[in-house]
Amino acid sequence: MKQWLQDDERMDQLLSHHLEIIQSPSVFSFSLDAVLLADFAQVPKHERAKIVDLCAGNGVVGLLLSQKTKSSIVGIELQPRLVDMAKRSIEINGLEKQLSIIEGNLSEAASWIKKDTVDVVTCNPPYFAATEKSTRNPNQHLAIARHELYTNLEEVIKVTSGLLKMNGKAYFVHRPDRLLEILETMKQHRLAPKKIRFVYPKKDREANTVLVEGIKDGKETGFRVLPPLFVYSEDNQYLPEVRRLLYGEE
Amino acid sequence: MKQWLQDDERMDQLLSHHLEIIQSPSVFSFSLDAVLLADFAQVPKHERAKIVDLCAGNGVVGLLLSQKTKSSIVGIELQPRLVDMAKRSIEINGLEKQLSIIEGNLSEAASWIKKDTVDVVTCNPPYFAATEKSTRNPNQHLAIARHELYTNLEEVIKVTSGLLKMNGKAYFVHRPDRLLEILETMKQHRLAPKKIRFVYPKKDREANTVLVEGIKDGKETGFRVLPPLFVYSEDNQYLPEVRRLLYGEE
Repeated sequence: MKQWLQDDERMDQLLSHHLEIIQSPSVFSFSLDAVLLADFAQVPKHERAKIVDLCAGNGVVGLLLSQKTKSSIVGIELQPRLVDMAKRSIEINGLEKQLSIIEGNLSEAASWIKKDTVDVVTCNPPYFAATEKSTRNPNQHLAIARHELYTNLEEVIKVTSGLLKMNGKAYFVHRPDRLLEILETMKQHRLAPKKIRFVYPKKDREANTVLVEGIKDGKETGFRVLPPLFVYSEDNQYLPEVRRLLYGEE
Repeated sequence: MKQWLQDDERMDQLLSHHLEIIQSPSVFSFSLDAVLLADFAQVPKHERAKIVDLCAGNGVVGLLLSQKTKSSIVGIELQPRLVDMAKRSIEINGLEKQLSIIEGNLSEAASWIKKDTVDVVTCNPPYFAATEKSTRNPNQHLAIARHELYTNLEEVIKVTSGLLKMNGKAYFVHRPDRLLEILETMKQHRLAPKKIRFVYPKKDREANTVLVEGIKDGKETGFRVLPPLFVYSEDNQYLPEVRRLLYGEE
């Protein structure tokens, strides 16, 4: 039997879809934000669309999206170790025909994927500016995923817009404290923000996550703020919507 | 005894503060949005600040703010009929020393109030662009309050910024579908958006109101999304936070 796991990796399950995914606490484990992004992103069900996931990490967003569409999904990930984990997860789940991962910096995305041809781009980018050293993780794998060491918000948005065809859709998950910068940069790069959803840890707390949809060359009208999502109940249990996303149960 | 009311006016109570306010269904009745704005606005408690309320209507925001501060509050309102109602409400409540109303177009605010001198500006402006004729009320009084017939978002923001001193605070209530325009225009006029709160009619519905705080010449960092506010319960009753704001009860 094939040995799927290396070192301190473990096999986790994306229970909502009976998928298996390789994780490693010392390298990369997906967060709730990735699950929320995959849920928020609207993808065509058919098999004719092109979907790209930037900052793919261990492939979690692509794996989840594969359950919502028959279209091909290409992930781009910088860290060879994460690319390797993602590839094994794709193989374990038998999704090689639909899902693939490219190793490289997203700044070079256009050398692998033709510009103006993609229907949907998703991205769960590093949240923290490179200058925010205080919270930088000494583990380089984790630091790259969390801090803008090899890319930054403007580049993510610019590359996303470049890949998308006209009326293609972009989906980002990020921190609300960078929302103004996100909206402004999207506009500069021809992405009209269309929908936004705020995620609040509890009902009386400030939002700590934001999901944004943009449409390339979309009209500037019709901006909508979707119903809020709360993560935890008063007694610190996942609320039903989150349980459904994580475990497939109500 | 003095005759306070004219025509179809009625005397309503702002029960949360035992204030009385003159309203008229055919001219102007305050909305929940005005109450939310007065609650959202942070005003110094002391008597040394200068507070201005633009698009003051029948004076509801100023009346409510007077219960949070000892500072002077000046309202500016275009419609003579509403100015008259506001003045009588101020008199009924014995607030003439603290509260006053100026009749005129806010575009001329600087001719009555010195620029760069105000600590807090609040505004519940007309929500609809003048071009949105479909929803225009045939009643001219109501149309002016709802549609940008005599002012518009950019002017409101420009005048607000002009009045404010450095680090002065602006508070707006508006519709989320104009949020991008609000944030962008604030930035163009030296108002850094700092806090935002979304109001959702019910917990599974899209936001229909947004409250925004901006600081003149403020830093661009530290943007926060406050806990959401829901108006109605599943069975269409006001929820406790709204009941408290409207009636002073939990």
